[in-house]
Amino acid sequence: MYTETLSRLPFWQHLTPAQQAAAADQCRRVEYAAGQAVHSPGEGCLGVLLIESGALRIYLSSPEGRQATIDRLHAGQICVMTAACMMRGVSFDVQVEAESDTAALLLPARLFAGLMQENIYVEAFLYRAATERFASVLTGMEQMLFLTLEQRVASFLLDEAARTGSDAVRVTQEQLAQAIGSAREAVSRTLKKLERQGLVTVERGAVRLADRPALYRLL
Amino acid sequence: MYTETLSRLPFWQHLTPAQQAAAADQCRRVEYAAGQAVHSPGEGCLGVLLIESGALRIYLSSPEGRQATIDRLHAGQICVMTAACMMRGVSFDVQVEAESDTAALLLPARLFAGLMQENIYVEAFLYRAATERFASVLTGMEQMLFLTLEQRVASFLLDEAARTGSDAVRVTQEQLAQAIGSAREAVSRTLKKLERQGLVTVERGAVRLADRPALYRLL
Repeated sequence: MYTETLSRLPFWQHLTPAQQAAAADQCRRVEYAAGQAVHSPGEGCLGVLLIESGALRIYLSSPEGRQATIDRLHAGQICVMTAACMMRGVSFDVQVEAESDTAALLLPARLFAGLMQENIYVEAFLYRAATERFASVLTGMEQMLFLTLEQRVASFLLDEAARTGSDAVRVTQEQLAQAIGSAREAVSRTLKKLERQGLVTVERGAVRLADRPALYRLL
Repeated sequence: MYTETLSRLPFWQHLTPAQQAAAADQCRRVEYAAGQAVHSPGEGCLGVLLIESGALRIYLSSPEGRQATIDRLHAGQICVMTAACMMRGVSFDVQVEAESDTAALLLPARLFAGLMQENIYVEAFLYRAATERFASVLTGMEQMLFLTLEQRVASFLLDEAARTGSDAVRVTQEQLAQAIGSAREAVSRTLKKLERQGLVTVERGAVRLADRPALYRLL
């Protein structure tokens, strides 16, 4: 029943009929509620997730519980951070959680590991998907390292507004702080400053972009 | 003449004799002096480097020239950040420079791109090598985000001492600052503090570890 989604995977045509049948048979639909943990380091291996709807947040966390979001995945994208155990000599010490209610097709670890051993196209797919996220994480890292807090807040709000097509970005100040790797108090001060300048309006559970061009000029 | 080195590449046995001959024929030895730029973003594609001796430093740089080292590669390792142009839909906005005098075997971009198109094992190798660096960069990122400056300095010194087998880490304060993504003045203050506590001795162009166990206890 998932064959249509599966057939869009770049390695699908390189699988034998038996491998295709095993994949169609063993993959399954999974659902996560907003805020639910999908994967933690040292927790074993889930598998590869093909996201159908919702969003996953990938983050690093410190022993004291500080968080820094390093990547986000949306519908149509593939999550391989939940499949690091299949990569020889590689470990990703990251947390994955559902940022909103999320549905995905799961290619379970055992299935995927088997396919990967039998088929070099599956291996190339996995590492390529990881490499694509690498490039995305580097961009986010550059922002965390070199942009001012004001620029990071503006950049996050503009990205989210562009992605959702709405000027009202649904995010709490705590979530925003985690997303850009900063502290809630600092983010709160920055939002107040931007509000005084007429660039945003802070609402309950959301930040509304009041002057998009001015926000762009900050970057 | 480079066949012995090349034959250790995991895809080598999957190449046809003609592909092996082309690789042996077109690869060449390159040398970089300490401090020399190896690759800059937007500069085109060099190819894959198999490092024979020396060290490469991978760093991000801000428009104002601030730098943050995100990875280091040593003898026996493979640099693929100089081959991002071969990865579809992936770009790495990073700088690569020789940290010490470095010799490497270069599989030039044109050769490698050709092999990769013809041979899925070569593609899998490239993305796997990138994924391995991803894991390493994430570890460094975690340190930059969550460790105190003192911890980052201690961690860098201990790593370098372990790697070189010497208690005298040859590094200027400017280099140390770049390596851990901080400012020279802040690093200078931190080193003075560690020196007062008897943990290190600051020498010209080097930092000597005076009390390794105490440095470990900082982490």
